[in-house]
Amino acid sequence: MKINHPLRNTAFPEEGAAQNELALFTDLYELTMLQAYFDQKMMEDAVFSLFVRRLPKRRNFLLACGLDTVLSFLENLSFNDESIAYLRSMKLFSDSFLNWLGRFRFTGEVRAVPEGTPVFANEPILEVIAPIPQAQLIETFVMNQIHLQTVLASKAQRVVSAARGRPVVDFGPRRMHGIDAAMKAARSFYIGGVAATSNVLAGKRYGVPVTGTMAHSYIQAHEDEAEAFRAFVRIYPQTVLLVDTYNTMEGIRKVIALAESLGKGFQVRAVRLDSGDLLALSREARMALDAAGLNKVEIFASGGLDEDSIQELVDSNAPIDGFGVGTSMGVSGDAPGLDIAYKLCEYAGKGRLKLSSGKPILPGRKQIYRVEEHGKDVQDIITRYNKDNPGRPLLITVMRQGKRLPPGTADLKTIRGHAQDQIARLPFRIRQIASADPPYKVELSASLSDFQRKVEQEVSPWNLEEF
Amino acid sequence: MKINHPLRNTAFPEEGAAQNELALFTDLYELTMLQAYFDQKMMEDAVFSLFVRRLPKRRNFLLACGLDTVLSFLENLSFNDESIAYLRSMKLFSDSFLNWLGRFRFTGEVRAVPEGTPVFANEPILEVIAPIPQAQLIETFVMNQIHLQTVLASKAQRVVSAARGRPVVDFGPRRMHGIDAAMKAARSFYIGGVAATSNVLAGKRYGVPVTGTMAHSYIQAHEDEAEAFRAFVRIYPQTVLLVDTYNTMEGIRKVIALAESLGKGFQVRAVRLDSGDLLALSREARMALDAAGLNKVEIFASGGLDEDSIQELVDSNAPIDGFGVGTSMGVSGDAPGLDIAYKLCEYAGKGRLKLSSGKPILPGRKQIYRVEEHGKDVQDIITRYNKDNPGRPLLITVMRQGKRLPPGTADLKTIRGHAQDQIARLPFRIRQIASADPPYKVELSASLSDFQRKVEQEVSPWNLEEF
Repeated sequence: MKINHPLRNTAFPEEGAAQNELALFTDLYELTMLQAYFDQKMMEDAVFSLFVRRLPKRRNFLLACGLDTVLSFLENLSFNDESIAYLRSMKLFSDSFLNWLGRFRFTGEVRAVPEGTPVFANEPILEVIAPIPQAQLIETFVMNQIHLQTVLASKAQRVVSAARGRPVVDFGPRRMHGIDAAMKAARSFYIGGVAATSNVLAGKRYGVPVTGTMAHSYIQAHEDEAEAFRAFVRIYPQTVLLVDTYNTMEGIRKVIALAESLGKGFQVRAVRLDSGDLLALSREARMALDAAGLNKVEIFASGGLDEDSIQELVDSNAPIDGFGVGTSMGVSGDAPGLDIAYKLCEYAGKGRLKLSSGKPILPGRKQIYRVEEHGKDVQDIITRYNKDNPGRPLLITVMRQGKRLPPGTADLKTIRGHAQDQIARLPFRIRQIASADPPYKVELSASLSDFQRKVEQEVSPWNLEEF
Repeated sequence: MKINHPLRNTAFPEEGAAQNELALFTDLYELTMLQAYFDQKMMEDAVFSLFVRRLPKRRNFLLACGLDTVLSFLENLSFNDESIAYLRSMKLFSDSFLNWLGRFRFTGEVRAVPEGTPVFANEPILEVIAPIPQAQLIETFVMNQIHLQTVLASKAQRVVSAARGRPVVDFGPRRMHGIDAAMKAARSFYIGGVAATSNVLAGKRYGVPVTGTMAHSYIQAHEDEAEAFRAFVRIYPQTVLLVDTYNTMEGIRKVIALAESLGKGFQVRAVRLDSGDLLALSREARMALDAAGLNKVEIFASGGLDEDSIQELVDSNAPIDGFGVGTSMGVSGDAPGLDIAYKLCEYAGKGRLKLSSGKPILPGRKQIYRVEEHGKDVQDIITRYNKDNPGRPLLITVMRQGKRLPPGTADLKTIRGHAQDQIARLPFRIRQIASADPPYKVELSASLSDFQRKVEQEVSPWNLEEF
């Protein structure tokens, strides 16, 4: 696959809506609560933690992603006149509240794990510390973006892992959930180890390598497959030829005939198989190409692939040099949604939680320490944030008073390298696509457990006593 | 749930990218093929059909959606200077091609089933007739949007069907795949029968009713749940109170105590249960509320719901008056991706297809006739487009020479009404959420079958013969 564009880093203000109306991308209850906080003069600092309650089936970890989008959003968050006018038309909000909302800015602090860091259940991916209306309003956007990008990066990492070194290319934009998803996917996939995308706009915006050659329609529009190959190769000598429009092995024979007729002028890099039994066809194609002296022509496979079918092909030593993966990676077919939550865990200096069954919260600001043994990360400890612990602390302060702290946005290639490095430090069983047994060990520190019990006891009496 | 805004129809130019760069939201191979068509002077009319190859498991039909977005895109499609400059930087394209691309407009014809029409496997949702470069370039965007919106409308319809008349509210924006998905979801869900969304920006843009009241964090931020209820009701007397932050039945008792203390001033519309055994809790809550004379206070349920859990609750006569549905509907959990295809079926007046195993194409322009018996739709017949047949033709011409035909965009409420009407005409077994046995009958007309065989024979000899 040809890589067409060098990496570069581009700030990107909008996310599926014009920047100046993005403040309205929120659940209505955030705004009704905001008015209540405003009326009640509840403006003290809140701490919200963003975390995933449990990993999806068969998943051993998630790859955190999406922080850059969140920080850009927070730096630019404000309500324009048109947004305020719309809210006024709802007849739910007072003039004094709307005037205050017109001056709304995010002035808080954000602590987060860097993009491309593996995370586990209940670990804070991000904590927001800000006056409660600010930390509350941003819930919908922050969850939406961290969820999306973490879902996608995590899925991509599995596909890349299954391909064991063979490049994986993102063919998914046509079946991803909308334009924003397809754009963020190209970036998240790249962080997760994908080599390139077919999405041209993602190349322009993020500098992700872009690739692609031909579809069936091009072949079909010609009277003859061999003629289509000849015409395309005249324009793109080093292209990848799609050979399964009518019959894969006939397609291969036409490529061979083309090579014979072009002689030294034949520079086709690869053939692409897009249907049928990819293992059998790749073997047959490899033999035919090799027999014709075309050992350098690679075989690229696509068509309904996911991490399981790729692993099977790789385990069977299919002579496939690269994979194009679409829908299954693009929508994270086995786990399109995570049980992600953004929960109040401190207000006005006091730890907070809720007791709703099956949905526990760890109170207060927290830190994650990742503990290493013999060069591998072996367990995490979630602690209260000011407690020192052995291991590397993962949450770092990335925004203060509404501004990104230096070094600001990491370069995309750096984030990708960080992901690769951090994944390599995980135990072998955790890096596999099958369920790890035992799973990665994550513990609460004694001080956090004690604090959780203390807050539970504080909360319970006045909420559980009979009236 | 309160409905806060009247319906209105708003044109919406951007889809997750600025309008003026949307032309680059395409797979790179579309552009490499375009340059080949340009070089080879292949500019004759092509017909592409968009269809779903097979229905997802357990699905009896799909609800077509997304046409409005596609038509807006086609009307505005062009490459701005910055996009051309980016393409030039890729060093893949000639100056003469890029100059031509700078003048690119969509001037073709679109035939489509109206939004909100039930469709089945292999039925064209849309056909594009345009010079091949035009019909080719738009593939990625057209598929992305019809796929997304059809996935979402179809899923929503199932959830609404399971709720049997009880309102369903979209709580999903935080876990949908990006901003574009969340925006289109609010619109698609409304077409599929959902009553309202929590997404404020969707209310502003599409006029979908917006609703929402309070989250756990509001309760947690107060020292006492009862105090939080009192404070919120002071501002929003007719609100819905969330009662499960600490203990659902304790929460209910606090609502009752509040009613006693407020007397006639108590106007709370509903309580919301968000965790635990919703059947048992709704019964217990209903009894407690009724015993306190609060028969008018409704019970609203949310928390991990999908069509199956809702059907179970409804079948068990759970006293629940409405449902808030998030992730499962928002990502279409059971079927996040469809096997959707956009395939060349005619070029330069000749039927085209491919023979790739398991991926057949119906050649030429087509029509779908829906046949009625005793007031119910009982089967569809896919025909060649100029063949008259019994039944209602479903594909209508909506764009000619790149312009929408009158009446242009239907009002959202009209589309919703159309969907409701068309779904009601389906046989009972097809409208159920369980797999229908037998499935809805879809046949090819004799003339289309004959044509398919004829094109197969034309295609085969020169593609299958040995070199």
